[in-house]
Amino acid sequence: MDTDALLPDLITSSDRRILLIIVDGLGGLPGPEGKTELESASVPNLDALAERSVCGLSVPIAPGISPGSGPGHLAVFGYDPLKFQIGRGVLSALGIAFPLKADDVAARMNFATLDESGNITDRRAGRISTDLCARLCEKLESEISLEGAEVFVRPEKEHRAAMVLRAPGLSDQLSDSDPQRTGVPPLEVKAMHSEAEHTAGLVNQFVEKARGVLSKEKPANGVLLRGFAAYQPFPTFQKRYGLKAAAAAGYPMYKGVSRLVGMDVLDCGDTFDSQVKTVRQETGDYDFVFLHFKKTDSAGEDGDFDVKVKALETVDSALPSLLDGEFQVVVVTGDHSTPCLLKAHSWHPVPLIMHSEFSGLDSVSEFTEKACAAGALGHIAAKHIMPLALANALRLKKFGA
Amino acid sequence: MDTDALLPDLITSSDRRILLIIVDGLGGLPGPEGKTELESASVPNLDALAERSVCGLSVPIAPGISPGSGPGHLAVFGYDPLKFQIGRGVLSALGIAFPLKADDVAARMNFATLDESGNITDRRAGRISTDLCARLCEKLESEISLEGAEVFVRPEKEHRAAMVLRAPGLSDQLSDSDPQRTGVPPLEVKAMHSEAEHTAGLVNQFVEKARGVLSKEKPANGVLLRGFAAYQPFPTFQKRYGLKAAAAAGYPMYKGVSRLVGMDVLDCGDTFDSQVKTVRQETGDYDFVFLHFKKTDSAGEDGDFDVKVKALETVDSALPSLLDGEFQVVVVTGDHSTPCLLKAHSWHPVPLIMHSEFSGLDSVSEFTEKACAAGALGHIAAKHIMPLALANALRLKKFGA
Repeated sequence: MDTDALLPDLITSSDRRILLIIVDGLGGLPGPEGKTELESASVPNLDALAERSVCGLSVPIAPGISPGSGPGHLAVFGYDPLKFQIGRGVLSALGIAFPLKADDVAARMNFATLDESGNITDRRAGRISTDLCARLCEKLESEISLEGAEVFVRPEKEHRAAMVLRAPGLSDQLSDSDPQRTGVPPLEVKAMHSEAEHTAGLVNQFVEKARGVLSKEKPANGVLLRGFAAYQPFPTFQKRYGLKAAAAAGYPMYKGVSRLVGMDVLDCGDTFDSQVKTVRQETGDYDFVFLHFKKTDSAGEDGDFDVKVKALETVDSALPSLLDGEFQVVVVTGDHSTPCLLKAHSWHPVPLIMHSEFSGLDSVSEFTEKACAAGALGHIAAKHIMPLALANALRLKKFGA
Repeated sequence: MDTDALLPDLITSSDRRILLIIVDGLGGLPGPEGKTELESASVPNLDALAERSVCGLSVPIAPGISPGSGPGHLAVFGYDPLKFQIGRGVLSALGIAFPLKADDVAARMNFATLDESGNITDRRAGRISTDLCARLCEKLESEISLEGAEVFVRPEKEHRAAMVLRAPGLSDQLSDSDPQRTGVPPLEVKAMHSEAEHTAGLVNQFVEKARGVLSKEKPANGVLLRGFAAYQPFPTFQKRYGLKAAAAAGYPMYKGVSRLVGMDVLDCGDTFDSQVKTVRQETGDYDFVFLHFKKTDSAGEDGDFDVKVKALETVDSALPSLLDGEFQVVVVTGDHSTPCLLKAHSWHPVPLIMHSEFSGLDSVSEFTEKACAAGALGHIAAKHIMPLALANALRLKKFGA
């Protein structure tokens, strides 16, 4: 079912506002005591909200497919993740608010340490400070010039940066230079398509010149590039849904995917408390607000069951302050599951609460994987969450006479 | 999942007959006492049928999408409503049994009242009688001639009529003349595509001539046109499913959509009692019968909870007489939900009963939204109901060796 073609004719205006809370890596699997992270957590506010709402399970991509953060979020934002694919490089560049133009090719860059024979000894250059990273990026950008192309090098956090090429006729059909292991030299970047040979040449030139510029630096004397991606602007929330949208996210990646769909990224500090405060105090002008909570996913990836349980309880504590009537539609779900048992993103369907005056009720009174499996929403593709939220906000006209 | 391509090879014959009862706008939302219309109604026969059947929820179009009556019914008839789109005009013309030919362009017409300066004072001309409507339609059709085109004007009910143009090379890419409000003149019909300019010219000529013909009439001295649609015949039930099909529907719209898919529209009076009687006594020759019940939808649109509850009980009372063994497969569902709370068609999934000797059982013993959400059919797209019904009638061979 593809409703993309339908939506443009159905969008209508309303003053009903939507809050989407994405609890990253929300779903889990039974831990040592046979209960999942959600079953182990005390989340009375989420339970109460589930009771006053319809619930279900969201399937991020398709059964068995574990999404990365990009497609996971795009799906919940209503963009079919198979149709709207984005590369890591574009996400990196958008995450640091680099003003990408159409057809720019971006890559995720790591500063790395190379030994005398050019082999990688540390893929993260000892996690250099963000300040040093910024200084080195500036140096690379100012000292490297490529014939017929502009090159931009911008810092992210610690050893992470984004590299962007701008020129006519670029292609992103390129292999990574990052071999993902130490003891070997960086790989030559190869064109995976004949039309990408010119771009591969530019990138390899950049890598060589970067080694020259960084030759005196310690420990960051080399760069690794991966996730080459050409930027194609996505249809925005405004255009697609008629929604003036804002994102309250703490991490660059989530800011990036929010920008990609045309959300204003709010300046909301680093903590979840400050994100919540921002949502409560500074989003009055927005029809739609996306609030991102990261810690559940990090804890899941670390396999730290107790930390994930506590993180879930943190979200739960913040909930009442978000349900004070400012938002007529409240959606709580995750972009994917991150079970501690797997220490990784997983394919498991994600609990979902859809709350509004018109959402209806079901028999779910607990916010857990099991309980939501019996919810009246059933199992729905994540990409259908936005149309449902729009319907609940009375922002969709009926289809056909 | 699109089974359209599969069906032609799988259809086989059987003497098992199918009854499809569409309770229009069946699903609802909790009312003043926290129960939905279905939960509030006493429907012992539907409950008992649910207990002897498998149940589920039918998703008319896709999550969040509220269907009009046309796409809602087409979906339950197994025609993908995104693939088979029909305009209001075609439905109007089919509803009054006008013998449309391929490429005819039809519009829904209202008689209206215009003041001296040509502004609309009543979009329904005081709901003139059907008799007057018929007389005026005849007058328009006989007195108006257009160069190179035939024009037909036929009465529906009260102020409603259908206008049909027949000529080579017509297009339905036309804007409405009905501005949907009073105090302004009718709009000029505009071509939304250059290829529709000729048709727009014909329609505007018709409107002008109609004003002349009606100039002495009171209160119906003008016409409003909307929902221009070119007619493209749909594959019939006979061709698609091998079913000789009949419709027992009271309202023109539902007769229209039934004709569109090749059903014989039975002459069955205006009341539900007479519709049920017709189904019981006059459908012996048919493999498939569609019985339409309207009142649940009208009550939902009026927001009249008690009337909707009573309407549900009316359907329930009629049920035993329809379960006397004449039909081996009985399906009960709705084309969409019409919750009194919304006073409108809605997106909420619709309760569904699938009953046959081979349907299987589940734990559902009550015909409500909540109970059906836990049924063994799960949430299915409405367009999959017909293949399921065919299977239950042993009218589908297996796919592949």
